[in-house]
Amino acid sequence: MSFFIDKLSRSQRKQLEKIFPGDQCGFTKGELLSCGVDASRLHALPVALVKPESTEQVRRLLEWAQKNKVPVYPRARATNKVGGCVPVNGGVVVSTLGMNRILEINKSDFTVRVQPGVVTAQLQKAVEAEGLFYPPDPASYKISTIGGNISTCAGGMRAVKYGVTRDYVLGLEAVLPGGKIIHTGGRTHKNVVGLDLTRLLVGSAGTLAFITEAVLKLLPLPETSASVLCGFKNITDALKGAGAVFGCGILPTAMELMDRNTIRALEMHSDVPWPDGTGGLLLLKIDGSDSSVRSDLEKMSSAINEASPTFIEKGLGDDQESLWELRRVISPAAFNLAPDKQGEDVAVPRGSVPEAIEGFHKIGERYGLTVLCFGHLGDGNIHVSVMYDGSEKDQKGLALKAKKDIFRLTLSLGGTLSGEHGMGLTKGGYARMQLSETELTLMRDIKNVFDPLNIMNPGKELK
Amino acid sequence: MSFFIDKLSRSQRKQLEKIFPGDQCGFTKGELLSCGVDASRLHALPVALVKPESTEQVRRLLEWAQKNKVPVYPRARATNKVGGCVPVNGGVVVSTLGMNRILEINKSDFTVRVQPGVVTAQLQKAVEAEGLFYPPDPASYKISTIGGNISTCAGGMRAVKYGVTRDYVLGLEAVLPGGKIIHTGGRTHKNVVGLDLTRLLVGSAGTLAFITEAVLKLLPLPETSASVLCGFKNITDALKGAGAVFGCGILPTAMELMDRNTIRALEMHSDVPWPDGTGGLLLLKIDGSDSSVRSDLEKMSSAINEASPTFIEKGLGDDQESLWELRRVISPAAFNLAPDKQGEDVAVPRGSVPEAIEGFHKIGERYGLTVLCFGHLGDGNIHVSVMYDGSEKDQKGLALKAKKDIFRLTLSLGGTLSGEHGMGLTKGGYARMQLSETELTLMRDIKNVFDPLNIMNPGKELK
Repeated sequence: MSFFIDKLSRSQRKQLEKIFPGDQCGFTKGELLSCGVDASRLHALPVALVKPESTEQVRRLLEWAQKNKVPVYPRARATNKVGGCVPVNGGVVVSTLGMNRILEINKSDFTVRVQPGVVTAQLQKAVEAEGLFYPPDPASYKISTIGGNISTCAGGMRAVKYGVTRDYVLGLEAVLPGGKIIHTGGRTHKNVVGLDLTRLLVGSAGTLAFITEAVLKLLPLPETSASVLCGFKNITDALKGAGAVFGCGILPTAMELMDRNTIRALEMHSDVPWPDGTGGLLLLKIDGSDSSVRSDLEKMSSAINEASPTFIEKGLGDDQESLWELRRVISPAAFNLAPDKQGEDVAVPRGSVPEAIEGFHKIGERYGLTVLCFGHLGDGNIHVSVMYDGSEKDQKGLALKAKKDIFRLTLSLGGTLSGEHGMGLTKGGYARMQLSETELTLMRDIKNVFDPLNIMNPGKELK
Repeated sequence: MSFFIDKLSRSQRKQLEKIFPGDQCGFTKGELLSCGVDASRLHALPVALVKPESTEQVRRLLEWAQKNKVPVYPRARATNKVGGCVPVNGGVVVSTLGMNRILEINKSDFTVRVQPGVVTAQLQKAVEAEGLFYPPDPASYKISTIGGNISTCAGGMRAVKYGVTRDYVLGLEAVLPGGKIIHTGGRTHKNVVGLDLTRLLVGSAGTLAFITEAVLKLLPLPETSASVLCGFKNITDALKGAGAVFGCGILPTAMELMDRNTIRALEMHSDVPWPDGTGGLLLLKIDGSDSSVRSDLEKMSSAINEASPTFIEKGLGDDQESLWELRRVISPAAFNLAPDKQGEDVAVPRGSVPEAIEGFHKIGERYGLTVLCFGHLGDGNIHVSVMYDGSEKDQKGLALKAKKDIFRLTLSLGGTLSGEHGMGLTKGGYARMQLSETELTLMRDIKNVFDPLNIMNPGKELK
C-alpha cells in the first residue's frame, strides 16, 4: 500500500496551517523545491513543508496525516547520500530544524537529552565544554543533525574504538503514525525490559516513527589524542602496518586507509608529505590520558616501522590537525580524476579489505573507469568512488554496471551493501542481492506494525 | 494465544525421536525435572528434552512444533535468574549444549563464529590465545553460554568501557517458528541494510526465534590491566572518588561499588583489608598497553586520594586477582545476614546511584529487612538484595512488598526494572509499571510477526 499526494484540499491546507501557524508552514514553490532534494542530488516535490517546534505539534501532524493518508517525510540537514529524505510520494516534508535544543547535559549521569534538530558538532562542542564526549563523528558532523544520525545509524571515523550512533542511544521519544507517543529505553546505561525498540528505531530511516527526543550516552572526554600518517609501497604493506598496531594491544580511535588512486587525486590537489612510490596510506588516531597517549604513540610508531613504511609523520594534540586535512579533502580532490562519481559505502570483513580493493580496481579497469578506495579500514567500511565523465556517451551506464559488480564482489566476500549510508532510493532496489525473501518479509511486517498505512517516508522500500 | 502441552501423542513422540535419534531425545522423569528449572529456582515440567547438534535439526523441530502447536523452550546452562528458561506451558525444552563448537576464529576479521552452546569463558580463553578479546563478562561467564548471553543481552563488569553483549553481535543465524532460517547482519563491523533484526533478537529471551549461530566482534587483547580497591567513609565519598576518576579523562574497564551492608557481609565472611569505619567501597579496573596502564594507575590513584579514602590498594597484572576475590564472594557472603534473599538488578541514571541506595536502605528499614546494594556503579546497574528469613512468618511477603517499593523508587529516579537479568517470570508482571500500553502493544505485535502461534518460550509475556 502506498499513497501519492501531489495536492492538498483547501480544508486540508487549513488544518495544516492550524497545527503550524505563521511561518511554521510553507507552500511556496521555492520552499517546496529546496526541501525536496538531499545530498544524493535526487529530488521530488512535496505539497507542504512544516517546521514543528514541539512533540505536541508532531503528534497532531501524525494524527492528521494518518487520517488523511498523507505521506510524511522527516528531514533535517538532508546530508543523506542515498535519497533517504526525498519525498517521492509527495505529501508533507517535516523539518526538524525547529526542534534544535539541547535540553539537558547531565554530568553525573553522563547523558545528554536533545531534540532531533541539534547539529552533531554543536552537541559535541557543548558536551566537551563540560568534560564529556560524544564519539560518533560522521563525515558531515559539522552540519548533520542528531535526528538524522539516529535515523541512519551514522558511523564515522571513531567507530573503530567507540562504535556507531546505535551504541550511544539510550532512549527515544517518538511519535507513531496516528499520533501515539512512545518512550523507548530510558536514561540508564543498561536496560533489558522487553524488546529493544530503541535499536529498532535507530537506522530505520524515518520509516517507522518520528523521533522527537533522544537521550544519548556520553563518555569522559579523553585528555588528549595523537595521530600518525604513514605511507607504504602498497595496500598490502599498509594492512601489515595496521595489523602490527592491533597486535600490540592498542585499539586506535580511528584507522583510515587510502589507496593509490586516492593518493594520486590528493597529489593533484595539494602539497603532500609522502615520497614518490607511496601506494597506500594509513592514518591513525589514538586518545586517552596525556601520559598513556605519549607512550602508546611511541609503541604504535615502532609497530608501524616493522612494516617498512615509506614515511611516517606523527602529531600530538593540536599538532595533528594538518594530518587530517588531507583525509578531509579526498571528496573534492577526487574530481581531479573525472567530473562525476558513483559513490558507494560497502563494508567487508576487515581481513578482506585488500582483496576487496584489488577487486574494485579490476572492476574499474574492466569498464575503463578509475576507482578510488578510501575510508574506515578499522571496520572494513570502504568508500568506493567510481569516477566517470557523464558528458561522454555510455560512461554513466558503465559506472552503474561497475556499481553492481562492486556489490557482487562485496557480498561474495561476506560484506554488506551499506556500512553507513543506508539503502534509500539509490540502493533500495539492490536489497534482494543481500537479503532473503524471509528477511525482507519480516522487515515489511515490522514496518506494518508501526505504520500500517505506510505514510512514514514511503517509496524507500527494500526490493 | 497460548498452548499448554503436558502430553505428546504416540505419533508425535515418534516424530520427535526421528528428528532427534538416540540420546538426543529424553523423556525420563529425571531428565524432564532437571531441565525444568533455572537459577531463579522456579520450575515446571516439559514433555520432552531434545538436544540438537545442527541447524537442520532445529529447523525440523520448529517446523514440527509449529504444525503441532507445541511450545518450545530454548535452554543452555540456565543461569537465568528470572525464570526465563522455565517451561511453564510444558512442551519441549531444547538444550543448545550439543551445539557447542567455536566454528572459526578469524584474526584478520576480528570476528569469531560460534554455535549458541559455547561457554562464555571458553570462548574468551580461545580468542585470548590468539591475541583477541571478547569483553562481555556476565557474573556467570564461567558456566553461561553465548546463546544465553545473546538471548538476555548479558552485561557484566566490563560494560563501563566496553558495553554489553548487544554491542558485540555482528550477525545471527536463527530459525523462525515454522522452520524458516534467517541470517541477520553479517560479519562486518558496520551494516545498515534494512531494519536491525540482529539487535531485535538480542535480548528477546528466546521469544522470537531460535538462535543457531552467531558472529561476534572481537577487539585486540589489551596488553595488561590494573585494579584499585579503595574504601571511603560512606557511599557519597565513594561516588566523589568515582567522579574524580572520570574527571581526569580515564574510562575505566570496570567500576564496582559496595555499600555498608555488603561490607558488613564481607567482614563476616572473609579477612578484609579495609579499616573499621569504611562505609563504601570502590573497585576499579583499567586496561591497555603496559605503559599506559602504569601511567593511568598513578593518575587514577591521585584522583581517588582527593576524595579522602580510608584506604587504597593497587594491583597490576597478576597481582590484582585478590582484590576481585572479595567482589566475587558477595553472593555467598550475603547469606551471613539472612538465609533467603529477593534479588533485583535495577538500573538508575549513574548520578542517581547515591539517592537510590539511600532509598533502598530506607525501604529495608521500613520492613525491618536488611538491604545490600552492590554492583556496576559505572552503568548505574545496582544489584539490590533484600535479605530475609523465609521460615519466619510474613518475611517473604515483606520482602515482596520491599521489591515493589524498590521498583517504584527506581522508576521515579528515571531508572529501569532490569539492567541485565531481563523480566521473565519473576518480573514480567511488573512491566506495566515501566511500559505504556502502546509500547507493550508494539512489542506484542512484533512478537506476533515472528511467532504468530506463540510457541517460542510462551508464558513470559510482559503484563
